[in-house]
Amino acid sequence: MKSVIATLVGGALLAGSLSAAAVEPAKQIELRQAGFSYMAWNMGKIKAQVIDGSVEYNQQQVEAAANTIAAIANSGIGALFGPGTEQDIGDVHTKVDPALFENMQDVAQLAGNMGTAANTLAEKAASGDQSEIRVAFGEVGKTCKACHDKYRLD
Amino acid sequence: MKSVIATLVGGALLAGSLSAAAVEPAKQIELRQAGFSYMAWNMGKIKAQVIDGSVEYNQQQVEAAANTIAAIANSGIGALFGPGTEQDIGDVHTKVDPALFENMQDVAQLAGNMGTAANTLAEKAASGDQSEIRVAFGEVGKTCKACHDKYRLD
Repeated sequence: MKSVIATLVGGALLAGSLSAAAVEPAKQIELRQAGFSYMAWNMGKIKAQVIDGSVEYNQQQVEAAANTIAAIANSGIGALFGPGTEQDIGDVHTKVDPALFENMQDVAQLAGNMGTAANTLAEKAASGDQSEIRVAFGEVGKTCKACHDKYRLD
Repeated sequence: MKSVIATLVGGALLAGSLSAAAVEPAKQIELRQAGFSYMAWNMGKIKAQVIDGSVEYNQQQVEAAANTIAAIANSGIGALFGPGTEQDIGDVHTKVDPALFENMQDVAQLAGNMGTAANTLAEKAASGDQSEIRVAFGEVGKTCKACHDKYRLD
């Protein structure tokens, strides 16, 4: 079943790649970094309000942050790992491990996990149950780390 | 009524600013540019599939793109226009017109319009009605342009 899902998600990634064909490689690198950094900012907001408690909990902000993470996670960001984006292009740097491009089915699986976990976080954020948000947040973080550990160079 | 809405949205922006206080100014500039460029990429996907027809229509992709635009538009991106981000910081460039920071109530109004239009686009995208998506897309574009014309330098 897992491989079926991976293939389906992989298909979606491929379809996404086609739609991104018009985006030149350097711009693809910039856009994927834009998407991930915007996700990270929103993860940070939830972390501050629900995990650390360093910022007072605000339901509207947490919900908006979770919706943003889920939307970006499911936006077809995989399409921005197109041919020619395996390494730095001029002054556009990438931390991607070129091994990613040899393991697209695994990447599709990891990306699918991220999308699923992010959707759950958005659902829990809408419910306002902070203990459930905390758990769902942790699960999203694991899916980020799973891909970073495998395919992001230090 | 408009001023009431603007004040409410302005309040949300201010609250967002507080939550972003930990983000240093240069990073705020990078993050707001990340959010806007990721929105623009997703606008481009809808444009290609629904307006130009240069890429075949794909319901899943258009819906995902519209959801991403709506989520970012409603993510509290205004919080990233904090004090100290009125001009370039080192090699971090910004096109923002410093006048924006003197007109936060107007900016809040424009941002609220963008969020509303983007939510409508997401609803229409979910319906799959291309003629309605086309109209809603145009309305989002107008809200982008309204702010660019007033507060983005060339």
